[in-house]
Amino acid sequence: MAWNTNLRWRLPLACLLLQVAMVVLFGVFVRYSPDADAHWTEAKKPGNLSSDLENEFYYRYPSFQDVHVMIFVGFGFLMTFLQRYGYSSVGFNFLLAAFGIQWALLMQGWFHSFQGGYILVGVENLINADFCVGSVCVAFGAVLGKVSPVQLLIMTLFQVTLFSVNEFILLSLLNVKDAGGSMTIHTFGAYFGLTVTWILYRPNLYQSKARQSAVYHSDLFAMIGTLFLWMYWPSFNSAVSNHGDAQHRAAINTYCSLAACVLTAVALSSALQKKGKLDMVHIQNATLAGGVAVGTAAEMMLMPYGSLIVGFICGIVSTLGFVYLTPFLESRLRIQDTCGIHNLHGMPGIIGGIVGAVTAACANSRVYGQEGLAHAFDLEGFKTDWSPSLQGSFQAAGIFVSLAMALVGGLFVGGILKLPIWGQASDENCFEDAVYWEVPEEPKHAASHAEDSTLKAPEP
Amino acid sequence: MAWNTNLRWRLPLACLLLQVAMVVLFGVFVRYSPDADAHWTEAKKPGNLSSDLENEFYYRYPSFQDVHVMIFVGFGFLMTFLQRYGYSSVGFNFLLAAFGIQWALLMQGWFHSFQGGYILVGVENLINADFCVGSVCVAFGAVLGKVSPVQLLIMTLFQVTLFSVNEFILLSLLNVKDAGGSMTIHTFGAYFGLTVTWILYRPNLYQSKARQSAVYHSDLFAMIGTLFLWMYWPSFNSAVSNHGDAQHRAAINTYCSLAACVLTAVALSSALQKKGKLDMVHIQNATLAGGVAVGTAAEMMLMPYGSLIVGFICGIVSTLGFVYLTPFLESRLRIQDTCGIHNLHGMPGIIGGIVGAVTAACANSRVYGQEGLAHAFDLEGFKTDWSPSLQGSFQAAGIFVSLAMALVGGLFVGGILKLPIWGQASDENCFEDAVYWEVPEEPKHAASHAEDSTLKAPEP
Amino acid sequence: MAWNTNLRWRLPLACLLLQVAMVVLFGVFVRYSPDADAHWTEAKKPGNLSSDLENEFYYRYPSFQDVHVMIFVGFGFLMTFLQRYGYSSVGFNFLLAAFGIQWALLMQGWFHSFQGGYILVGVENLINADFCVGSVCVAFGAVLGKVSPVQLLIMTLFQVTLFSVNEFILLSLLNVKDAGGSMTIHTFGAYFGLTVTWILYRPNLYQSKARQSAVYHSDLFAMIGTLFLWMYWPSFNSAVSNHGDAQHRAAINTYCSLAACVLTAVALSSALQKKGKLDMVHIQNATLAGGVAVGTAAEMMLMPYGSLIVGFICGIVSTLGFVYLTPFLESRLRIQDTCGIHNLHGMPGIIGGIVGAVTAACANSRVYGQEGLAHAFDLEGFKTDWSPSLQGSFQAAGIFVSLAMALVGGLFVGGILKLPIWGQASDENCFEDAVYWEVPEEPKHAASHAEDSTLKAPEP
Repeated sequence: MAWNTNLRWRLPLACLLLQVAMVVLFGVFVRYSPDADAHWTEAKKPGNLSSDLENEFYYRYPSFQDVHVMIFVGFGFLMTFLQRYGYSSVGFNFLLAAFGIQWALLMQGWFHSFQGGYILVGVENLINADFCVGSVCVAFGAVLGKVSPVQLLIMTLFQVTLFSVNEFILLSLLNVKDAGGSMTIHTFGAYFGLTVTWILYRPNLYQSKARQSAVYHSDLFAMIGTLFLWMYWPSFNSAVSNHGDAQHRAAINTYCSLAACVLTAVALSSALQKKGKLDMVHIQNATLAGGVAVGTAAEMMLMPYGSLIVGFICGIVSTLGFVYLTPFLESRLRIQDTCGIHNLHGMPGIIGGIVGAVTAACANSRVYGQEGLAHAFDLEGFKTDWSPSLQGSFQAAGIFVSLAMALVGGLFVGGILKLPIWGQASDENCFEDAVYWEVPEEPKHAASHAEDSTLKAPEP
Repeated sequence: MAWNTNLRWRLPLACLLLQVAMVVLFGVFVRYSPDADAHWTEAKKPGNLSSDLENEFYYRYPSFQDVHVMIFVGFGFLMTFLQRYGYSSVGFNFLLAAFGIQWALLMQGWFHSFQGGYILVGVENLINADFCVGSVCVAFGAVLGKVSPVQLLIMTLFQVTLFSVNEFILLSLLNVKDAGGSMTIHTFGAYFGLTVTWILYRPNLYQSKARQSAVYHSDLFAMIGTLFLWMYWPSFNSAVSNHGDAQHRAAINTYCSLAACVLTAVALSSALQKKGKLDMVHIQNATLAGGVAVGTAAEMMLMPYGSLIVGFICGIVSTLGFVYLTPFLESRLRIQDTCGIHNLHGMPGIIGGIVGAVTAACANSRVYGQEGLAHAFDLEGFKTDWSPSLQGSFQAAGIFVSLAMALVGGLFVGGILKLPIWGQASDENCFEDAVYWEVPEEPKHAASHAEDSTLKAPEP
Repeated sequence: MAWNTNLRWRLPLACLLLQVAMVVLFGVFVRYSPDADAHWTEAKKPGNLSSDLENEFYYRYPSFQDVHVMIFVGFGFLMTFLQRYGYSSVGFNFLLAAFGIQWALLMQGWFHSFQGGYILVGVENLINADFCVGSVCVAFGAVLGKVSPVQLLIMTLFQVTLFSVNEFILLSLLNVKDAGGSMTIHTFGAYFGLTVTWILYRPNLYQSKARQSAVYHSDLFAMIGTLFLWMYWPSFNSAVSNHGDAQHRAAINTYCSLAACVLTAVALSSALQKKGKLDMVHIQNATLAGGVAVGTAAEMMLMPYGSLIVGFICGIVSTLGFVYLTPFLESRLRIQDTCGIHNLHGMPGIIGGIVGAVTAACANSRVYGQEGLAHAFDLEGFKTDWSPSLQGSFQAAGIFVSLAMALVGGLFVGGILKLPIWGQASDENCFEDAVYWEVPEEPKHAASHAEDSTLKAPEP
C-alpha cells in the first residue's frame, strides 16, 4: 500500500495555521510578568540594586538554558542513533518543540499565570513550557521513524493540552509536589506515547528492519544527546524548585542518582551479553533513568544515599527492560517502542512517583525543621489538617491520575493519528529520512542512482 | 592558474606578529575593571556579602558563557555542512575568533572603557568582544571555502576595527539602542561580508561545485551549530541589556521570536519544493532569522506577540531568500554567498533595525511607566529634548550608517584581500580541507592514492 | 598471546561492588551542607530573600554546570579522534567519571568537609569532585586504547585517593593556592598517567598502528570536545575561587590566555610541517594548553597581558612537544602517550605551577590593596609571618610534591594494572571498540563478514 507522503500542502498549512493561531492568542492573552515588565519596576524601586538582584531572572535563567539544551540538543540528538533518520530526529524534534513551547505557554498560562485577563509570562513560564514539551519529546521516542511531521504537530497540540490539564490536577487540585516531573512529564509522556504507538501498530514493520539500527557514527551523535541530558539533569530537576536550599538539594540528589545509575547500567549491559560486551543502546538510555526517577523527590530530604539507591535500582531496571521487556512488548502486546521509552521514562517515572510518595510520607520536622517542613511543602496558608501521610497519599494518587490521563488521551490521539491522511510512510519506508527530506547523494556513488528509487529498497 | 597555497611562512608570521602586538598593547593599556580588581575591593567593603553579590560577574557571566558557545561551537559547526570543509570551518573560525576577541577588547576598550590611560576590562567587555567577533563570523560565512587563513586574519583585523568605529557612532554618538546587535553585528557583518565576496568574485568556481554541498553526516554536524545558536540566542540578545527587567524581557522576546520562526521556515521549505520535502539548508539557517531580527527590540516592550510576528515574517523572508535570492545574487550580481548570510543575517538584520526603530518610536510612559521609560532608554542625565520619535529616527539612521560602513569597508578590505599573495586556493580547489590541512587517508582506500593528487580532481 | 577480554563477570562485579560500597559509605557519612539542608534554613531566616540570594548555589552553580560539561563532553569527545575507539572514549570516560565523582565526594569530604561525623556536601563539593575526576580523565588520555574498563575503574579508585591526599597536602598543609588545579589536577594527573603507561609499556603496539589515527569525521567529533573544553575553561579556573573579584578575574585571565594560545599553536603547527599544513592534533590539543597553565595564577593579579604571555608560550611549547617530544618519549623512554597528555597537561601544568609561584611571590599591597592581599591569600586568622616570597616558596614546593605523588602513585597503580587478569586487549587489538562493545556492521558490507574476525586484521 503506497500512501502519499508528499506534504507540500499539508505541512505548510499545518505550520502556518498553528502559528497564526499562536500570534492571535498571544496578542489577546500574553503579557510580561512584573519581573520582566518595564512598567512594574516603578513599584520595585528602579535603580535599586537589591531589587534587580531579586529578579526571578537571576534565580532561574541558568537552569532555564540548561533545560533548553536538554529539550533541543538532548532529546534531538539522543534519537539520531538510527542510521538513516538523523535529519528527522533532530529536525522534527526541533519543529514540534518550537510549536509546543508556544502552545504550552498559553495552556499552562491559563491554568497557573492568569491574572486580570492576561497570562503574565516570566522565566519560570519558559522553563515550564520546556518541561511540557519534554513530555512530547518522550512520546516522540516511541513513534520515532513511523510518523509524519504533520502527525507530530497534531500529537503535540493534543498532548500539550492534556499535559496541562493533568499538571493542573496534580499540582493545583491534589497539591502534589513534582518539581522534576517524574509523574507529569515522564510517566504521562511515556504511557501516552506507548498508547499512541500501540494504536498505530504496523504489522509489517519488519520490512524496515534494516534501517532500524545504528551505524558507527550515528551512535556517537546519539551520545551527544545522552551526555547533555545526563549533565544538565540536575538543572532540570531543580529548575522550578523553591529558591535556596530546595534548588541546591535537588541538584545534589540528581547528581548522585545519575552517577549511581551509570555503574549499574554498565554492569547489567555487560552481564546480559554472552561475550560481556557493552551495548550502546543501554549506555545511551539506561544511564539516564536515575534522573527520571528522582524527579519528584529530588527537592525533598531524600539524602544523598537515598539518591544513590534510586539510581542503583533504576540502572538495573532500565537495562533489564531493554533486554527483555521491549522485545516482549513488541511481539506480544504489539507495542513498537522505537527508542525504548518504557525503559527510560515509563518504569523509572513510576518508580520516581513512588519514591516521591514515600519520601513525602516520611517527612517530619526532625529532618526538615519546623519552618523547613512548612516551606518545603508550601504549607503557608494551607489547610491545617496537612500531614505527611496525607501528602504521601496524594502523591500516590498523582501517579494513577497521570497514568489514566496518558492512556485515555493516548487512545483518543492515536485514533486521530491513525487516519490515513497525514502523510505517514508505508511500512517499508519507515526510519528513512529521504521520505520527508532532500537527502544528499552519497559521494563516490554513481550519480545515475536516483535518490527516490532508494526508498523501496531496504538498504540504499 | 596555480597559486601557491603553502602557508608555511605566511601563516606563522601573521599569527606571531599579531599575537606579539596584542601582548604589547595589552601590557600598555589593559587592566582589570574595579569589579575584577583585588585592590578596588577595599572601596567596596570586602567580606560584605551583598557587595560580592552585586559584582557584575553574577549578572552577566552565565550569559557570557552562552554567547561564547555561540561564537565558537555555534558559528563553527553551522559551517561544517560542506562535505570536505569541516576542519576549516571549525578550525579557521576558532583561529579568527581567538584573534578577534583580543583585538576587540582593545578597540572597544579605547572607545568605551578607557579611564585614566587604561582600558578596564570586566565580564561585559568579554561579551562585547565576542559580539564583535560574531560579526566577523557572519562575514566568514560569505567567503567560506574561498579564502586562506591568512586572508581571514587580515579581514578580522580590519573588520573588528570598522565594527568598533561603527558601534561607537551608533551607541555613543547617535544614542541608538542595539543590545542584540541587529544593526551593529548582523547588518554590518552581513553586508561587509557580501561586499568582500563580491570583490573576490571567482568566475570559475563551478569547478569546485561537487564539493559545495553536504553529505549526510556533515549536515548533522551543522545541526549542532544551528541548535546551539538557536538555544542560546536569548542569552545573546539579553547579555548586555540593563539589569533586571530588561534582561528578563529580552530573553522572553527572543525565545518567542525564534519559536515562531521555526514553523514558518519549515512551512516555506516544504511548500517551495515540488515533492514537499524539507531542505536541511533552510532548517539550519532560516530558523535562526527570528533571533537576528529581534536583536534591537528584544529589550524593549515589544510584547510576546510582537516577537512572534517578527519571527513569523523572518522565517518566510529568509527561506524565500535561500530559494530565490541567493541564486539570483550569484548569477546576476556575481555575489557568491557560500552560507547564504544575506538570508540569515542581511535581510533579518535590516528588518531588526526597522523593528527596533518602530518600537522605540512607539514607546510611551503608559507602556513603560514614567521611570521605566527613562530607565529603558538611559535618559538619566540625558538631554531633555528626548522624544520617542526622535529615538526612532536615530535608530533608523543607525541602519544606514551600518550599511554605509559595511559597503565602504568591504570594498577596501576586499581590495586588500584580492592581492594574489595570501595563499588563497585556485577555483578548482575551493571548499577542500586538504589545501590547508593534513587530512587522514580514508580507510579502505589504496594507500598509494596520494593525498595531494586529490586536490586537482573535483571529487577525491 | 591471546588474553581473555570477555568481561562478563569482571566488569559487572567491579561496578556493582564499587557502587554498593558507595551507597553504604554515603549512608554512613554524607549529609547536606547547611545551604542545601531544609532544616538549617531556620537559622538562616527562612523566606528572607537576601538569605536565599546568599546561598552558595547561586555563586557556583553556573560554573559547576560548565565544569560538568568539560568532564563528560569535553574530555569524552576530545578522545574520539581515534577512528575505531569512539564508543570507548566517550563511554569509558563516562563510566570512570561517574564512579570517580562519588568516590571523590567521599575522599575530599573526609579531608575538607568533615563536621560532627558527617561529610556535608554542597555545590562546591560537586565542583571539586568533578575537578578530581578531571585528573583521572587526563591520565586516561595516556593509556587510551590500551586498557580495559575494569583497569580504568581500578585506576580511578586509586588515583582519586592519591589526588585527595596530594590536594590535602598542598591546600591544607602547605597553604598553596591552586584554584584551577595546574598542580593538583594537571601536573599530578599527567605524570601519574605517564608513569602508568610507562609501566604498561606494550612493545608490539605497532600492530595496532593502523587504528591509532583519525578519520575525517572522528576529527570533527574530537573538535566538539576541544571547543567545549576551551570555551568553558574560564569557568573551570574560576569555579572555586573566592566570591566576587577573584572569580571575575580568574575568568578574564583564562579567557586571555586561551585566546593567545590558539594563535601560537596554529603558527607552530603550520611552521613545523613542510608544506605549511595544519595538523588537527595540534588544533585539538595545543590550543588548550593556555587554560592549563593559568590554572594556579588565574585568580591572582596576573594581569591580562601576563595571561597572554602565558598562553603565548604554552601554545608554542605544547605544539613543539607534539612534534618532537612525544615520538622521543615513545621510542626512547618507552612512554606510549596516546593523546599526548604530556604536551597538553604535563608541561603546561608545571609551567602553571611556576607562573603561580612567581605571581604569588610578586604579590604586594600596592597591586592588591592591603585588604585585598589578605583576602586573596586567605590571611584572616593566618600566622602573622606570612610573606609573598614564603607563599611563592610553598607554591613551588607544591609542584614537587605533586610530581612525587604522581610518580610514586603511578608506579604502584601501574604495577597493579599490569596483572594479566583485568581483561586488557592484546597488542594487535588495541584502539578497537569491538573488543568491549557490540559494534554495528558497516552497511553495504557483506553480512557474512563476522564482526569478531575483524579484530585480528589491522583494518576492518
